[in-house]
Amino acid sequence: MMTETITYQDGDVTLQGYLAFDDQTTSKRPGILVMPEAFGLGDHAKQRANRLAALGYIALAGDPYGDGFQAKDLPEAMKYAGPLREDPVKFRKRARAALDKLASLPQVDANRLAMIGFCMGGTFSLELARDGAPLRGIVSFHGGLDTKLPAEAGKVKAKILVCTGADDPFVPPAQVTALAEEMTKAGTDWQIISYGGTVHSFTNPEADSTGIPGLAYNQQTDTRSWKVMTDFFNEIFA
Amino acid sequence: MMTETITYQDGDVTLQGYLAFDDQTTSKRPGILVMPEAFGLGDHAKQRANRLAALGYIALAGDPYGDGFQAKDLPEAMKYAGPLREDPVKFRKRARAALDKLASLPQVDANRLAMIGFCMGGTFSLELARDGAPLRGIVSFHGGLDTKLPAEAGKVKAKILVCTGADDPFVPPAQVTALAEEMTKAGTDWQIISYGGTVHSFTNPEADSTGIPGLAYNQQTDTRSWKVMTDFFNEIFA
Repeated sequence: MMTETITYQDGDVTLQGYLAFDDQTTSKRPGILVMPEAFGLGDHAKQRANRLAALGYIALAGDPYGDGFQAKDLPEAMKYAGPLREDPVKFRKRARAALDKLASLPQVDANRLAMIGFCMGGTFSLELARDGAPLRGIVSFHGGLDTKLPAEAGKVKAKILVCTGADDPFVPPAQVTALAEEMTKAGTDWQIISYGGTVHSFTNPEADSTGIPGLAYNQQTDTRSWKVMTDFFNEIFA
Repeated sequence: MMTETITYQDGDVTLQGYLAFDDQTTSKRPGILVMPEAFGLGDHAKQRANRLAALGYIALAGDPYGDGFQAKDLPEAMKYAGPLREDPVKFRKRARAALDKLASLPQVDANRLAMIGFCMGGTFSLELARDGAPLRGIVSFHGGLDTKLPAEAGKVKAKILVCTGADDPFVPPAQVTALAEEMTKAGTDWQIISYGGTVHSFTNPEADSTGIPGLAYNQQTDTRSWKVMTDFFNEIFA
């Protein structure tokens, strides 16, 4: 497997993504954009890109902030994430730049794109779906679900799969209900899985070491949700 | 594959189940109890038992009413289901009789039991889980989720998987929320999947022909939920 740093632009911001793919074949294959947690592009999202590459996809882990910046703690992450999330147009543009880069790669079948994301990355994936991006599907893992620009009927192309912890203090039940209502109103193809005994960051083995209340790794939910994602990809790329 | 009618008792009620299994092997294997919709044991649940047998399980489709009775329409089904559901102890006993029969069969590994159910059958599966039956897992497809005897902490042995239609008029959002709260309070292992654009009886190709509002087959949700169930069985029987 080949991995490389890949540079792309969002206006005057230079972003440093991480690309993973099988270099033993040159055939075009589905491309998966992976957006990381609010801490920036680190090992967690890169490892998921590696795992997607091992499944036969070409995966780009995107850089949310520029220059591959990684926050050292939650306050710093919030300092960067806050202004970005504030304006949904700007926010969507940041992820769209990554998706365009991925779609432009010679190994990628641009008609077979999907996106996954963790925490803020899950929010990115929902926002690109709402924006009508040419995605076959998106998967949000413990992502924030609310938006200032709700989905419009007929605009969303992506099938939606949301995996959320029932005890996630950052994604309360009212937010889940609101998403379901929004997506039903917009007539999208959606599924929401609520996992009992599960809080925020359930896919990230480093979550516990942050010491942040409401964040914890959950191996069982991680395994289950990843399996559902692979089934979902088998469906949308069949 | 072998199928046969199998007779068992709940007090003085004689029940006629339908057993499906691979008769080319005599080795013990996990047993799956399948409980049907409120219309009684018909082709839908029998076919699911056949599919489970093809996956290597031994499946018993249970008879909810006795003598293999099948209702000719909804009013008749309600006439039979109503009194049965009214008393949760009696209701649980009816499914427990089927589970005990299944567990007693020589081909069944009684330490590896699970249960699935459709509509009222889903309710049966949740009620047996609440009752502390020796099940590794239960799957409810468009089942009613409410109960007069909520789960108690430490009593539920089964892992819970609920597949429900977001637009199911018989399983409104408040019922889904109440189940999540009940199961969290009892400390069970649970997952709830809500499927957009999906109403009641989404697994049953005959649903549309009943003409009952709020019932409709949904091939995509049927396929997705069955796949999740097979993954779930792979997990609990690993």
